[in-house]
Amino acid sequence: MSASLTSLLAPESIAIIGASPERTHIRGALLHLLRANGYAGRIYPINPSYPEIDGLRCYPDVAAIGAPVDLAPVAIPAGAVLTALEQCAAAGVRNAVVISSGFAEDAAAAPDLQGRIAALARRTGMRICGPNAEGFHNEPGRVTATFSPAVEDPTVGGPPVSPRRIGVVAQSGGIGFALYNRGRALGLSFSSIVSTGNEADLSAADFLRHMAEDPETGAVLLFIESIRDLPTFRAAARAAARKAKPVVAIKVGGTEAGSAAAASHTASMTGWQAGYEALFRQLGIVAASDLDEALSVMAALITNPPARGDRVAILTVSGGAGALATDSLGLAGLRVAPLSAATQAQIRAFIPSYGTARNPVDLTAQGAQGGGTLRAANLLLEDDDIDIIVIVTSLANPHRVPLDGTDLRALVAAWRKPMLVHSYTLPSPLGLATMAGAGVAVMRSMSFLADAARALARTGAVGAGPGETLPSEGLRTAALLDTVGPLTEPAAKAVLAACGIATAPSRLVRTEAELDGAAEAVGYPLAVKVVSPGITHKTEAGGARLGVAGPDALREAYRGILEAAAQYAPEAVIEGVLLERMAPGGVEVIVSVVRDPAVGPVVTVGAGGTQAEIWRDTVHRIAPVDEAEAAAMLGDMRSARLLAGFRGAPPADAAALARLVAGLSRLAVAAPRIAELGLNPVIVHPKGGGCTIADALLVVAPA
Amino acid sequence: MSASLTSLLAPESIAIIGASPERTHIRGALLHLLRANGYAGRIYPINPSYPEIDGLRCYPDVAAIGAPVDLAPVAIPAGAVLTALEQCAAAGVRNAVVISSGFAEDAAAAPDLQGRIAALARRTGMRICGPNAEGFHNEPGRVTATFSPAVEDPTVGGPPVSPRRIGVVAQSGGIGFALYNRGRALGLSFSSIVSTGNEADLSAADFLRHMAEDPETGAVLLFIESIRDLPTFRAAARAAARKAKPVVAIKVGGTEAGSAAAASHTASMTGWQAGYEALFRQLGIVAASDLDEALSVMAALITNPPARGDRVAILTVSGGAGALATDSLGLAGLRVAPLSAATQAQIRAFIPSYGTARNPVDLTAQGAQGGGTLRAANLLLEDDDIDIIVIVTSLANPHRVPLDGTDLRALVAAWRKPMLVHSYTLPSPLGLATMAGAGVAVMRSMSFLADAARALARTGAVGAGPGETLPSEGLRTAALLDTVGPLTEPAAKAVLAACGIATAPSRLVRTEAELDGAAEAVGYPLAVKVVSPGITHKTEAGGARLGVAGPDALREAYRGILEAAAQYAPEAVIEGVLLERMAPGGVEVIVSVVRDPAVGPVVTVGAGGTQAEIWRDTVHRIAPVDEAEAAAMLGDMRSARLLAGFRGAPPADAAALARLVAGLSRLAVAAPRIAELGLNPVIVHPKGGGCTIADALLVVAPA
Repeated sequence: MSASLTSLLAPESIAIIGASPERTHIRGALLHLLRANGYAGRIYPINPSYPEIDGLRCYPDVAAIGAPVDLAPVAIPAGAVLTALEQCAAAGVRNAVVISSGFAEDAAAAPDLQGRIAALARRTGMRICGPNAEGFHNEPGRVTATFSPAVEDPTVGGPPVSPRRIGVVAQSGGIGFALYNRGRALGLSFSSIVSTGNEADLSAADFLRHMAEDPETGAVLLFIESIRDLPTFRAAARAAARKAKPVVAIKVGGTEAGSAAAASHTASMTGWQAGYEALFRQLGIVAASDLDEALSVMAALITNPPARGDRVAILTVSGGAGALATDSLGLAGLRVAPLSAATQAQIRAFIPSYGTARNPVDLTAQGAQGGGTLRAANLLLEDDDIDIIVIVTSLANPHRVPLDGTDLRALVAAWRKPMLVHSYTLPSPLGLATMAGAGVAVMRSMSFLADAARALARTGAVGAGPGETLPSEGLRTAALLDTVGPLTEPAAKAVLAACGIATAPSRLVRTEAELDGAAEAVGYPLAVKVVSPGITHKTEAGGARLGVAGPDALREAYRGILEAAAQYAPEAVIEGVLLERMAPGGVEVIVSVVRDPAVGPVVTVGAGGTQAEIWRDTVHRIAPVDEAEAAAMLGDMRSARLLAGFRGAPPADAAALARLVAGLSRLAVAAPRIAELGLNPVIVHPKGGGCTIADALLVVAPA
Repeated sequence: MSASLTSLLAPESIAIIGASPERTHIRGALLHLLRANGYAGRIYPINPSYPEIDGLRCYPDVAAIGAPVDLAPVAIPAGAVLTALEQCAAAGVRNAVVISSGFAEDAAAAPDLQGRIAALARRTGMRICGPNAEGFHNEPGRVTATFSPAVEDPTVGGPPVSPRRIGVVAQSGGIGFALYNRGRALGLSFSSIVSTGNEADLSAADFLRHMAEDPETGAVLLFIESIRDLPTFRAAARAAARKAKPVVAIKVGGTEAGSAAAASHTASMTGWQAGYEALFRQLGIVAASDLDEALSVMAALITNPPARGDRVAILTVSGGAGALATDSLGLAGLRVAPLSAATQAQIRAFIPSYGTARNPVDLTAQGAQGGGTLRAANLLLEDDDIDIIVIVTSLANPHRVPLDGTDLRALVAAWRKPMLVHSYTLPSPLGLATMAGAGVAVMRSMSFLADAARALARTGAVGAGPGETLPSEGLRTAALLDTVGPLTEPAAKAVLAACGIATAPSRLVRTEAELDGAAEAVGYPLAVKVVSPGITHKTEAGGARLGVAGPDALREAYRGILEAAAQYAPEAVIEGVLLERMAPGGVEVIVSVVRDPAVGPVVTVGAGGTQAEIWRDTVHRIAPVDEAEAAAMLGDMRSARLLAGFRGAPPADAAALARLVAGLSRLAVAAPRIAELGLNPVIVHPKGGGCTIADALLVVAPA
């Protein structure tokens, strides 16, 4: 099937099923809005009750048209939809948009009604959007196939800041058209806004794929509850990245999933958002959590080149506004450092003595006069220490704009760095028009400007995300084949060892008599741990002793562990006790892979031990990752300082840890039956010392 | 001096120093705006160059007026200001607003020019706002004493949502008038907006105190860089709380201070924002970090009663918008739990089968028709499980509003719970007017609505903050009297012991010969630590050994510590080695008091050891706190779960820890020479076991 949905979104002919002259009803509104917005193609109202509607000939059914039909919007009661769709398919209609509700979303719906719609699409090749969709609006094509009030006057909006049109793909019609409504006020232009509804046939991924190729669309906004077709979504996002079309996504609805008890600590640590977080990062999609935040970020991305780094210079005429900007940008993780002495001197040359050239630069009203702001901006464009320029000014005045529009346009045309503008007052129409004329989107809120600056810095740093590398060949995972469910620690470590991932020397002991021989083979001091498929959390069960130094202590530990385990889980089968050489000290981290039902294996690194759960200091990627990406993950941890050598400690062997993370991620890809593999803690020794997997949990899924 | 600044902010007569007919100059704009906005009092332009300006008689100097003058705005060059002010004071002018720049903010200003203005105010009793202020605007009094373009048309704005007027006190004129400009668009009404400038005489605290008493002002917005007069500020905030006037503050400018190296780890952990965070919390002031966030929170506070808790019910007509609201509120720390079966059943009775009554409640467009939203809201007002109602709807339609205005007004008039409304589309003028007519402020952004909901929940829970309790009598701090600077650990612990705060048994050892006797007196196992005024960070210096189990290990530890210390700090005087009984295990926390130059002693609790620095899991209050407040602090820690008994560990003795925190806070108040007192770690033993102060750092300030 072609990726193009042009015949759906830009049809040459439309048959409105059940068309009505009643504009207050959905079916009447569809016909009215389509014509009011100037659709230039052929329109065929279908309704046996009318010979004509508003001067258009009305047909009793689709078959009676006798001409090709590209699109049929359907907004009749749910019970009549399937028959109508069958008639459409029989008449050769190419696409349908089912606006009617009463399908999978409805507790009282006829069983499998939606499944039959999906089957019809598969059988006939007619593509179907919906059901329970709010339809779509194609602005440049003047195709209105929705009853959303947001399209009642699509010409209203702020002065356009860019010719690049934004496509919207939304799993909520209300939010999709709200993005359109709010975005136009910010001066954004749109191609198509699509509400995907229940996605019986066409999914959000299909529309993203279309928009990635569609020449009318220069960027895409997504509103996502869940991605139904991951391979298409990935391919579509990569296609968008290849065409340098920014994609910004709001992902919702995870909270409830998160509250459902996760099967294990490892899985709960990975968390409900990890999969999408990792997926978006890999695909270069910018995540947002608020409508205006998403629109501000999008406005910044389509009007700016990516930033080469996160170093921001602030130009302002108000010390207070400069301080607020500094705090907001700092909170968002950007750097606002003092400017170089040379740049400060150049700025000081034209601002009054009560201004400051440090950063934030307070030009003062007097210093900003006569082009001072743009003069300073020009100096910062030349300054290699600055990646992003933020101008904080007041555009409220209805008669004057503090920046010269022509000069600004010239500067923007030549710029090589992002430049963001915020007005701390509400901008006047003149202010907005002047800035838009120069291609500048005015950020209404400083906190959303900070989000936009972060997105620009990340886009520059990350590009479109790393490509997928192939897993290393020849991973031996035969050990998995005869087991299902959680493996004991020695079994898990045996799998790791078989796959070339080193573990500490150890022996499984089943009787007290074996203790001394095993201890001698392994070497003191020992970690001593119960081995039982019924006891996953050994510490909680009192089933682990660390730093056991000699034979007497070992015997005591052995007995104590078996006793505690018997008390903790009387039903559990005890396979024995594992003696393992105590690792030397180091920084504890957790490394895991959990197979996410939506996005596949998610690799996580985080602060080790119980800390990962308390602090949620975890970083996620989709497997596989190479060593460079794994190293980047370690750097993204809030506790990265611990690896670098914190408070006098020696730097840890981060390179060995990165190798381990990359190897684990390849293993997860090569062995799809690994549902979950958690190493916690991994002890990272001082540089050159490698790392030790102190504990391992492996869950194997059925073949 | 009276708290009232009425003669300044609502003067009966105004003399404009240097008045000019040139409206594009500041002095001309002042006269023009004052008259254009309808000031009803007497106006005396002062300028020897003109006999009259715009039909008003012009005077050569203030003395020539020969009638009382309440206010003199001054916007002449800095060098002439002092003389003009002296003339004003001599002529009996009661107040002046100095708009001129070129004082303390100006590197090139004449030395101590500002100090002489302050001295003039003290000497003559004339109150002075500024210099370097942007002036003020008193809206109900029609007094415009500013050149800010924001007051050029003060009648513009959205329909008013409440008769309560908001006062603005801003240490940045640009931001103060931006709050006015943005706030009016949201339907807020204002009393006076004051730019306080350099605060040579009148400070932000003075204006807050005035507004706390001013009957025209129902709430106050603050923009703060630093509070210069803390006692007045505290008194003013408490007065506002007594009158139930909400105060919302944006505090900026800390980032730079934070980057200045702090004297110690303890102080750096307390951090640059801790003092203000603690102060605001104690005074019931809501902190905000964005202009629109502050205004949204304020709009919610002045139109709603406080919430009794943090349980939110969401009513929506869009599943997607409901999911977004759920995520935003969850991120802000509010609870969106399923409604009770009874409430769900009542809601299900009038919504279609494809809606959901769970929470978020999706009424669907059909279920919302005919008053469905308000019917559901009424059910939630009756539901004791719900503290806050959030309605998420679309108010974009220019011709129809989905909520009946009259019914909403009746419901609002009777409500006993906060109800917040968000329109995911941009609201139409009709939508805004209908909601405003019912006393409802429409929240433009879901994330700011979430901030507002959190503020309502906290206001309900915290009230106006705890009162200040008196420190316990008879604290013996004589031990401090002969020392300045950091004390060694045994000296610090001696002070704690003298003040009734228990420490572990210990002995200071100065020679190897003393080791065995001291160890016997203290009891094995031991913590062994170097004692040196030159070594604050013992672990980094290799100067501490833990778990020393017997005489041989002790001797080895003693030698090793002295050797490491000598290597780490060859110049440091070594007083000896401290032997201390090893505490049994427990949860490690940090407890500290640091005297903040702005707000006084700040008590901090946080995750212990190095964790506090990595995770910044710290909670702050201003000393003193009682045990209940200390317990609340512990509950606010992100790692509170560790104290409750995490992963099978027994619950810790939080009560003993709360007693310690409260005692430490009283000590800090009683002994003002304690600059910094850090206990890190404090080991909190299982319930009933108390806690052990494992290390203590005490810095004493000069008397």
